[in-house]
Amino acid sequence: MTDQASTAATAAPVTDAEIFAGHEGGKLSVAATRPISDPRDLSIAYTPGVAKVSRAIAEDAAQAKRYTWADRLVVVVSDGTAVLGLGDIGASASLPVMEGKSVLFKTFGGLDSIPLVLDTTDVDEIVETLVRLRPSFGAVNLEDVSAPRCFELEDKLKAALDCPVMHDDQHGTAIVTLAALRGANLVLDRAIADQRVVISGAGAAGVACAKILQEAGVGDVTVLDSRGIIHSGREGLNPIKQQLAATTNKSGLTGGLEAAMKGADVFLGLSSATIDPELLGSMADGPIVFALSNPDPEVHPVDAARYAAIVATGRSDFPNQINNVLAFPGVFRGALDAGARAITENMKLAAADAIVAVATDDLGPDRIVPSPLDPRVAPEVAAAVAKAAVADGVTD
Amino acid sequence: MTDQASTAATAAPVTDAEIFAGHEGGKLSVAATRPISDPRDLSIAYTPGVAKVSRAIAEDAAQAKRYTWADRLVVVVSDGTAVLGLGDIGASASLPVMEGKSVLFKTFGGLDSIPLVLDTTDVDEIVETLVRLRPSFGAVNLEDVSAPRCFELEDKLKAALDCPVMHDDQHGTAIVTLAALRGANLVLDRAIADQRVVISGAGAAGVACAKILQEAGVGDVTVLDSRGIIHSGREGLNPIKQQLAATTNKSGLTGGLEAAMKGADVFLGLSSATIDPELLGSMADGPIVFALSNPDPEVHPVDAARYAAIVATGRSDFPNQINNVLAFPGVFRGALDAGARAITENMKLAAADAIVAVATDDLGPDRIVPSPLDPRVAPEVAAAVAKAAVADGVTD
Repeated sequence: MTDQASTAATAAPVTDAEIFAGHEGGKLSVAATRPISDPRDLSIAYTPGVAKVSRAIAEDAAQAKRYTWADRLVVVVSDGTAVLGLGDIGASASLPVMEGKSVLFKTFGGLDSIPLVLDTTDVDEIVETLVRLRPSFGAVNLEDVSAPRCFELEDKLKAALDCPVMHDDQHGTAIVTLAALRGANLVLDRAIADQRVVISGAGAAGVACAKILQEAGVGDVTVLDSRGIIHSGREGLNPIKQQLAATTNKSGLTGGLEAAMKGADVFLGLSSATIDPELLGSMADGPIVFALSNPDPEVHPVDAARYAAIVATGRSDFPNQINNVLAFPGVFRGALDAGARAITENMKLAAADAIVAVATDDLGPDRIVPSPLDPRVAPEVAAAVAKAAVADGVTD
Repeated sequence: MTDQASTAATAAPVTDAEIFAGHEGGKLSVAATRPISDPRDLSIAYTPGVAKVSRAIAEDAAQAKRYTWADRLVVVVSDGTAVLGLGDIGASASLPVMEGKSVLFKTFGGLDSIPLVLDTTDVDEIVETLVRLRPSFGAVNLEDVSAPRCFELEDKLKAALDCPVMHDDQHGTAIVTLAALRGANLVLDRAIADQRVVISGAGAAGVACAKILQEAGVGDVTVLDSRGIIHSGREGLNPIKQQLAATTNKSGLTGGLEAAMKGADVFLGLSSATIDPELLGSMADGPIVFALSNPDPEVHPVDAARYAAIVATGRSDFPNQINNVLAFPGVFRGALDAGARAITENMKLAAADAIVAVATDDLGPDRIVPSPLDPRVAPEVAAAVAKAAVADGVTD
């Protein structure tokens, strides 16, 4: 175990009282960047001084970037339809998660961020609301929106807004998963092009992981939903799954998890369905197993280690924690630093590479990704993402 | 002159460079209430700990008040249609003013506040947007919305939202103006019931001042718009002005400013129309003159002082500054402290009384209201407003 994992394992468990105390009154506060302590401060920050700044923006809209906070403000947006493993619990109950996300944006990315939770689940109404609020923010982090609505919502927001938009449950997970697979392959001296990856779960994360892994050159990807392997012969697939059927599963597998796992090199668990550890024995020798369901991994990491060469989970109390916080603060920071109007596939791939690059300082079977708290990660990711944004020509 | 006024008058004028530097990068920042410095902090503020808090809110919606920031968050909302004296300059250009307002909410009221500026001027769309965002905030401060739309917008928001809503350009101004008139009357030993007040301007502030002054027992109010005295014989009045015509102007005056001013006790300037100082000579002996247009008062305070017993303006470089900051931080703080679902007329009247009560410590012709920076004001206003909310039965 790494130092971090052993520390976490030996520390007293977090109590409910400690958790609720940590959320009392909310987790965010707003501060003035400059204090108001005398009439002069007041006449600069408010009337009459502020009128000159407003007039300057009225005359040249570009001045808003310089003289307001909006251009670098990330709104964390949710309708509360797919909150953690809790499902559709509504906007208000999702708010503690969104506040937490804003805390992480500030802590790791140095970005101001506010939660906006919406009391509507209508995709077009959510888009319309954010279009109306466009002058108030600089980027949108979508969070905990149920599939398949999340795909339509992200697509429509990207079309409607001239700023970075990313659904983190999709792309944050995909970026960190790709980074972890690259890290594991470096440790094991394996090539991504030779690998077949089984993805259990065709929700937001499963779909995005299938996409980025293929972009990164993974040999083949087999995706399963609750009914089994997604293949082009299946009836009643929604448009997203039809697309998956068309682009994945090169060997034309059909059936269930057993059929998919046989001979596979990598298992990627992105649903809450548990699996029998013995299934891992049917995979290729020394497979890579990422059991990312939270808080209960698809297979316990100790059981998985009996078969697997490398095991990762989403949990902080085991080695190799695959946590989105390795990606989103740096991705948005880089996009905003570059003045990007969008987040492209190359920006996501660059983020994954930057995470791996930090990990290579101290790579090992129990350390295929950096710690979520490693302060080097977000700046490296930001720099790589900003460079990719410029290369892709999506900056102002 | 008071100490404050003489300090302001002798200090070097604020330069444009100083103003723009004071707005660089915006005036607000978001902070975490508790730092994330180790895996334990992360597992409390974010996954897996946060799931327990979200579940608690899903099971009992009232828990959101305790465990999120939303219940005490004030959104400062504008469509940018009537920004300071600049007019309809749009949402983005209004943002420096709204950020400034949020700074003042924090500085004086201890309340977290964020600006939400809207790229629509449709009243129903603004209402709909805030209804959708309802779980994200605890109170709405409307700002710089043009008249007469602002009246309809405030009414519709109050009907649609179960939380405090106040258009500050109306009611903040009205509260502080009433406080100033009470202060002036205390200094001069005059009674509000004996007074006739002339209000020049029938916009947001003029309409709200006419209302609160009548509620406070002013003998008579005469309101003028750009066409002259508003009276029931005038054609083409909009519904708001029809209402003014029905409730004000007891003596049935017609004509222009000259007709209105003759024998009046108080002049209240709430438009940008300048007036001839000699008109003040036609008022009752030693009138009270509040020339609140910013940055240029309707009549220069030095000229007004030749006729008036007491002069007030909106400017910080003359005595008796009538500034909304004396009201809104305490009004919202008191409403939220009490768990009020609305801001009632009694809460506004209580706020005015509380402002006067602070001023009476050191009352004089050049000090009819406290300094905008007096730290005693907001807590006193908050306590009085909270008490009035409870008395009015609008608390949870």
